[in-house]
Amino acid sequence: MQALWLENQQLELREVPKPNRPDEALIRIRKAGICSTDLELVKGYYPFTGIIGHEFVGEVVDAPDKSWIGQRVVGEINAVCGTCEACMNGRPTHCENRTVLGISNRNGVFAEYTTLPLKNLYRVPDSVSDEAAMFTEPLAAALEIQEQIKFQKADRVLLIGAGRLGQLIAQTLALTSCDLHVVARNSHAQQLLAARGIKVIADSDVQSQKWDVVIEATGSTEGFTLARRAVRPRGTMILKSTYAGDMSVNISSIVVDEITVLGSRCGPFEPALRLLETREVDPSGLISDQYKLGDAFKAFEKAAQPGVLKVLLEI
Amino acid sequence: MQALWLENQQLELREVPKPNRPDEALIRIRKAGICSTDLELVKGYYPFTGIIGHEFVGEVVDAPDKSWIGQRVVGEINAVCGTCEACMNGRPTHCENRTVLGISNRNGVFAEYTTLPLKNLYRVPDSVSDEAAMFTEPLAAALEIQEQIKFQKADRVLLIGAGRLGQLIAQTLALTSCDLHVVARNSHAQQLLAARGIKVIADSDVQSQKWDVVIEATGSTEGFTLARRAVRPRGTMILKSTYAGDMSVNISSIVVDEITVLGSRCGPFEPALRLLETREVDPSGLISDQYKLGDAFKAFEKAAQPGVLKVLLEI
Repeated sequence: MQALWLENQQLELREVPKPNRPDEALIRIRKAGICSTDLELVKGYYPFTGIIGHEFVGEVVDAPDKSWIGQRVVGEINAVCGTCEACMNGRPTHCENRTVLGISNRNGVFAEYTTLPLKNLYRVPDSVSDEAAMFTEPLAAALEIQEQIKFQKADRVLLIGAGRLGQLIAQTLALTSCDLHVVARNSHAQQLLAARGIKVIADSDVQSQKWDVVIEATGSTEGFTLARRAVRPRGTMILKSTYAGDMSVNISSIVVDEITVLGSRCGPFEPALRLLETREVDPSGLISDQYKLGDAFKAFEKAAQPGVLKVLLEI
Repeated sequence: MQALWLENQQLELREVPKPNRPDEALIRIRKAGICSTDLELVKGYYPFTGIIGHEFVGEVVDAPDKSWIGQRVVGEINAVCGTCEACMNGRPTHCENRTVLGISNRNGVFAEYTTLPLKNLYRVPDSVSDEAAMFTEPLAAALEIQEQIKFQKADRVLLIGAGRLGQLIAQTLALTSCDLHVVARNSHAQQLLAARGIKVIADSDVQSQKWDVVIEATGSTEGFTLARRAVRPRGTMILKSTYAGDMSVNISSIVVDEITVLGSRCGPFEPALRLLETREVDPSGLISDQYKLGDAFKAFEKAAQPGVLKVLLEI
């Protein structure tokens, strides 16, 4: 089968054998999405070799439990052991022995087929389109924030970044009663937010040390610096993006201002699918372009352009 | 009066006028302590000019309310406005208009006299010696950790650093039911901990990614690196020390491991004084040396030596 292979920070379309893992579900990929983590992987943020891609919707074509065959599914990207300390203590996404779809020791979804354990799969409700279902994984990641902290009605919340992930974070936070403002530079991103009644604020209007919670979703040093400036003493900075390389940070100011800095990664699939089913979150409008797998290089080029939201691969 | 003056990172013993602020209590300093923050101020961590020093026990010699005269007191170091947003929201130590004793816009205590607002003062119980009372401020800072997070019985807690502040943190954490281990290099520091039944662990024995809570109290890059290595995914790193300069940090790993990084500074005086009165915390044994104010340079040299705990100035 054709697959998009990453090795030594080089992408290559190559023919690879169809996966053969009888202990896992064999999934034919229908749509897959390019995420900023994919772009970072190509930049070398983590030394992965194999088929990349982890956002997908597909159809089960074989499985240890045959009742799954024909089901349209999305999949939790962390394949876990179930027996390590993290798994036994309710932190399966931090499994010490995990493999991660298209990110770590497990081939991903920019290919005709992938495999995942059955326990990773979630059936997609019929009313949710392939395009919408493809957003389940990043939407779950957006919801992880609300697993970590509870928002209060009076909370002044600043979201920095309104890209692929930022838009989903904005939509999920808008469902809480916090006072949300989003820093969005791109006019299309601003329009998408405004259309949902979400307040947009310019960088230059962000007050220093005033925001109870600041969420950084740009993955840039500039975004981190703005977040640090905006958060109030004893406030919380939530970091939603991975950054290639180390960053120079003034740790003393974090001590003096008693800031909480909180890393945030993968989140829960079930509420993500529910929000797509009820249309409380609507990712239509977040798709910038769609390419065939054979045009994956063009798709990656497009996804790397500023202001571009989700780029899909049709497999 | 004689005072230890800091200007352009240079310490100088100089004659300065006795302070004259009729709206505040005039306090004759009895004992003062040298803190790592004082050493950092001399290194330039914050551009303070004036009399340094903030840990003290003294006697009120004049005050707007005369009933305070003759009282032996310790003092909260943040002098606050009471009307800004931070003050009005229960975060007075983060007052936007604060001055900080011997640290920011307010002359400190390495002098014959200082002044503080009456609301900053706490009477010292008769049973608490001058030497013990002098530890109230750093002990309050140690207790701030327990204001920020609640320790559970099963929590594996690693404290890195058993110096001036580390010893007090160790004693306060030992009063909780957490499973505490302390990284202490100096043999005297190890003995002090062992004498109180507190477990000591060598750097090389610290397991990676195993500790629920890690407290960094060395203020060194090395300590920060060990803390980052030791904390488990979804664990908490508490930073108790200020660091001169910026530090290079791998932010992505904090995101991927969903670490909470929490800065921690000044804490509550009342429980600190109670713990000294009940002797549940005993700072005797933490005093390395005592000097006259005229020998302040020698005192600072001594305090900067590795393994040295608290150095007092007798005023």
